[in-house]
Amino acid sequence: MQFHLNGFNAGDPRVQAPSEMAKTNPQTDSLPEQVDVLIVGCGPAGLTLAAQLAAFPDIRTRIIEQKEGPLQLGQADGVACRTMEMFEAFGFSRRVMEEAYWVNEVTFWKPDTKRPEHIVRNGRVQDTEDGLSEFPHVILNQARVHDFYLEVMKNSPSRLVPDYSRSLVDVEVDRTATDYPVTVRVARTDAAHQGQEEVVRARYVVGCDGARSAVRKSIGRELRGDSANQAWGVMDVLAVTDFPDIRLKAAIHSATEGNVLIIPREGGYLVRLYVELDKLNENERVASRNITVDHLIAAAQRVLHPYTLDVKEVAWWSVYEIGQRISDHYDDVAGRGDDAALPHVFIAGDACHTHSPKAGQGMNFSMQDTFNLGWKLASVLRGQCNPELLHSYSAERQSVAQELIDFDRTWAKMFSDRPSEGGAGGVDPKAFEQYFVKQGRFTAGTETHYQPSMITGDSTHQALAEGLTIGKRFHSAPVFRLADARPLHLGHVARADGRWRLYAFAGKHDNGGAESGIRALCEYLTDSPASPLRRFTPAGCDIDSVFDVRAIFQQSHRDLALESMPAMLLPRKGRYGLQDYEKVFFAGLNSGQDIFDMRGINRTLGCLIIVRPDQYVAQVLPLAARQELADFFDGFMQQPS
Amino acid sequence: MQFHLNGFNAGDPRVQAPSEMAKTNPQTDSLPEQVDVLIVGCGPAGLTLAAQLAAFPDIRTRIIEQKEGPLQLGQADGVACRTMEMFEAFGFSRRVMEEAYWVNEVTFWKPDTKRPEHIVRNGRVQDTEDGLSEFPHVILNQARVHDFYLEVMKNSPSRLVPDYSRSLVDVEVDRTATDYPVTVRVARTDAAHQGQEEVVRARYVVGCDGARSAVRKSIGRELRGDSANQAWGVMDVLAVTDFPDIRLKAAIHSATEGNVLIIPREGGYLVRLYVELDKLNENERVASRNITVDHLIAAAQRVLHPYTLDVKEVAWWSVYEIGQRISDHYDDVAGRGDDAALPHVFIAGDACHTHSPKAGQGMNFSMQDTFNLGWKLASVLRGQCNPELLHSYSAERQSVAQELIDFDRTWAKMFSDRPSEGGAGGVDPKAFEQYFVKQGRFTAGTETHYQPSMITGDSTHQALAEGLTIGKRFHSAPVFRLADARPLHLGHVARADGRWRLYAFAGKHDNGGAESGIRALCEYLTDSPASPLRRFTPAGCDIDSVFDVRAIFQQSHRDLALESMPAMLLPRKGRYGLQDYEKVFFAGLNSGQDIFDMRGINRTLGCLIIVRPDQYVAQVLPLAARQELADFFDGFMQQPS
Repeated sequence: MQFHLNGFNAGDPRVQAPSEMAKTNPQTDSLPEQVDVLIVGCGPAGLTLAAQLAAFPDIRTRIIEQKEGPLQLGQADGVACRTMEMFEAFGFSRRVMEEAYWVNEVTFWKPDTKRPEHIVRNGRVQDTEDGLSEFPHVILNQARVHDFYLEVMKNSPSRLVPDYSRSLVDVEVDRTATDYPVTVRVARTDAAHQGQEEVVRARYVVGCDGARSAVRKSIGRELRGDSANQAWGVMDVLAVTDFPDIRLKAAIHSATEGNVLIIPREGGYLVRLYVELDKLNENERVASRNITVDHLIAAAQRVLHPYTLDVKEVAWWSVYEIGQRISDHYDDVAGRGDDAALPHVFIAGDACHTHSPKAGQGMNFSMQDTFNLGWKLASVLRGQCNPELLHSYSAERQSVAQELIDFDRTWAKMFSDRPSEGGAGGVDPKAFEQYFVKQGRFTAGTETHYQPSMITGDSTHQALAEGLTIGKRFHSAPVFRLADARPLHLGHVARADGRWRLYAFAGKHDNGGAESGIRALCEYLTDSPASPLRRFTPAGCDIDSVFDVRAIFQQSHRDLALESMPAMLLPRKGRYGLQDYEKVFFAGLNSGQDIFDMRGINRTLGCLIIVRPDQYVAQVLPLAARQELADFFDGFMQQPS
Repeated sequence: MQFHLNGFNAGDPRVQAPSEMAKTNPQTDSLPEQVDVLIVGCGPAGLTLAAQLAAFPDIRTRIIEQKEGPLQLGQADGVACRTMEMFEAFGFSRRVMEEAYWVNEVTFWKPDTKRPEHIVRNGRVQDTEDGLSEFPHVILNQARVHDFYLEVMKNSPSRLVPDYSRSLVDVEVDRTATDYPVTVRVARTDAAHQGQEEVVRARYVVGCDGARSAVRKSIGRELRGDSANQAWGVMDVLAVTDFPDIRLKAAIHSATEGNVLIIPREGGYLVRLYVELDKLNENERVASRNITVDHLIAAAQRVLHPYTLDVKEVAWWSVYEIGQRISDHYDDVAGRGDDAALPHVFIAGDACHTHSPKAGQGMNFSMQDTFNLGWKLASVLRGQCNPELLHSYSAERQSVAQELIDFDRTWAKMFSDRPSEGGAGGVDPKAFEQYFVKQGRFTAGTETHYQPSMITGDSTHQALAEGLTIGKRFHSAPVFRLADARPLHLGHVARADGRWRLYAFAGKHDNGGAESGIRALCEYLTDSPASPLRRFTPAGCDIDSVFDVRAIFQQSHRDLALESMPAMLLPRKGRYGLQDYEKVFFAGLNSGQDIFDMRGINRTLGCLIIVRPDQYVAQVLPLAARQELADFFDGFMQQPS
């Protein structure tokens, strides 16, 4: 954490100084007439976006929610490794790690061959393969994830808080308008304001309003897909049981009584059970069955036989039908044949894709949607990037969601199938386990792979860093900081602040001195008129306000000298021109491998890794590839006016 | 973290349910007439004690402070590894790690032999030896440490908050009183209550009121020692410099301009400089010199030559004279010849020992004082232990402070001395560096070693666990939890909750089954009338409410079965009788060594480690040593009435 740059401030450094706007014109209980971005819905997608945009006090953001206040319990709970990496950028990964249940292993249970009415443990696998991420896969009440985002928003310069008890009436886009083309009507639903309506004009509207999204309907999009016609129940319980794996994620196939998935929960006592219920008829909704929590408990007890389950308290429960559905496009213009039209309305999260909760992907994917969209909206609104950049949101997120849907369909089907015992039909328990292992990376969220586009390069120079795949998330590794010899994760320097990271990995003998490739790159970036840093960083801003350049050397710090580093790596910043000492790193040794080994970086040549504000690798370039570097950013950035 | 035991609660699990008292009779702005413990002073010592006592809602605690509100800046900043281990027990070590500067290396500078008016780097050492603690040595504003304690207090069942703007008038102990023997008069100093006085009768009073402690004076104790007659200045600054080690702890000896110690601070920009000023005359106070911050800056600039120091903002500064002084006893009865007298007034922190800030020990030692006292007061007030236990506070803490004073005197002298260059007189720079390294463990706070007493055993069975020294703090090591295969640090299961930990390390082939030494121990503890657990755990309380028994096995979890563990290791707790799954661990492998290797535990026999509520190893016993186990607790515990 860096703070005190513009003077010492007492108190919690997470509480940032309020912006002038937040001081002189603090948020009131009424929606303003005009905003830059109106977010509809305070779920994981909406809050990720709100937390991202709140970092930019020059962007006027509001977020509305139907409910009367913050979520208290229930709903999603799985937090994938990739999501934890994003939480790190928002500053609350460690709080989640402290509170959450960690999924370390998964066990698989099947009918006992000799006594099929009994279940027996049939397998045990590590949940996440070694080295996949520096973060664990964890389980935490969705409400707590909301709490952490709300805290980030409240502590941001914007002091953003949601506007609750607001129901969307309609959304209209005026394509002839010169500015604020979206008009949104909102009904207030709390007792004090019943019957009142607010009208907001927005530059952009983002519908994070769930599977029945009103925003989606307003732009004529729909979810398409199928349903397995299978009802499931879910319950969070405090219970006493002699089932030995109650604190492990456990997938249980019984012979004739259906299936149960056990997900232990935070705090050591609470546990979630997903319980298979009835097959539904075609087009039947689960609500028609009048299922009670007692049905769920009884079904779980039958599956767990011969183990007992004595439920003492039900904290939350629900029933649902499995279905995988997705919208073909995520904005108001994509695929409609008008290449000149720019998107102004977006949908994200459950509004554009729904699936079974079994793979624990819904919440995670929703948050990644808006982490993808957030920096794009911010950079367009702030004049850093061309508005055409916004097309990439639907293009990137829809295709990776389609892959998820396909995976999820297979997974959910295997989960609901009867176990086979050598004969035909049903799912082979070992095959089920193998599929789980094979898809571990997918489930961890680390397999998301964006295709080449204006913001994702091709693979020309991929060989310079085999382990940092272009289009995939920047896979962090441990390094040491030169100025204070502190061990840390390189990826954790990336905060959710909309900036691009340029990680310059030095060649073998490069020590930052006269012959240094790093020095030459830094001098180009600061001095050349063609430098993207010079062209796209607004006058009067800190030198790292758009591009955050960091260098990683191979030598030990005892063979490097801070004082002979290029000036750009010790930049003067803020009102006092203080030096920033956190730009230079050395590889050091961690369990025999350093970051060059771990990520397959060419030790002879080094390389430059360009990382997007949402932590995805945009390009791998030779250190000296000036033209390719300039061309890349020319493709979508615009010079400050 | 364990929570939801007595039912699901939404929101932050750190916010504990308020006690009945806190609900029906919440703390007001007036002091009550009677309290169990009155703490005088909201410094690190006072707040550690308040946070500890706040965990027990049946103990009425109040803490008064002269200042009008919480500390904002300045004062101490060093947080030793041992202190971080204690912070872990209070639940905020990770927040400190996130915010703080980490002291990884220390450099030493001396005059350049060729150009003595210039300083040159003369050495570089790792700050903390590998494996000394799982926590780093860090630097953080004392005010933030206060904030974290205040949060613990506010979130505790007691909802304890300090009473500010209170000045102590006097303290009187009535040795004839049957209860509440201490009467304290307090003057209110805020404008609204000016001239008002409050009288509080207390069972115990603890003076954490600093070097000029009024509580100390009231019990006729005084600080004795000497002063080096050396003035020093300290300043926290935002500055620009070309001195390359400005982000490292750096000790700088100049040839003729004195010495400077650089301590980088949290946030990446702030730095603290300790600057040697004038020699004082005998009995002269530094205040008489009218030293300004400009003097400090100019002196620092001269020492750093040829490097420049351009101070942009001074966040805080102060001047002081070095002195090592200590009180012979820390309570109102010790050493006064009346063996029957029980202590009722205690002093802690700067009230009983002062020293130079150079070794970064003041704040750390003060907090350890009251962490030692807190559980003792709580267990006596709650009827768990005989009041004679309270004698051990002065006995234990005074003697370890005396060692600190002796160390500090040598260290401070070396620091203020001129560097020698081979000739006679002055301090040899290499000797200075070597002394620093040698004393690293002392500085880290891990060398504190309590002598045998009623609560610290002798070394009869020390050989069973060579690396867990009786009388020293329990040195944590990594293990895995059986129920969920989670990796964690065994020492972190110990919260600041006043409970004793019994860590039962299993012998080689022990798997908890029929022939198991662990099982036999558990059965003794639950079934034998002689068992301390049976004798000293109040009826109706959870089985682990006084003694928290944990078992560590050598096998992998794949060779252990949760369901065949002794019932005591899966205890039923709380209103629902839910099972606690966090009592059983396995060693697993961490970088080739497991906890048995790392702590020298006898793999053939195993052993039982008894750990005090303040994390110190009280005794090492064979697993089967029933009588010694019973005798140990008989020495100071009392049966519930």
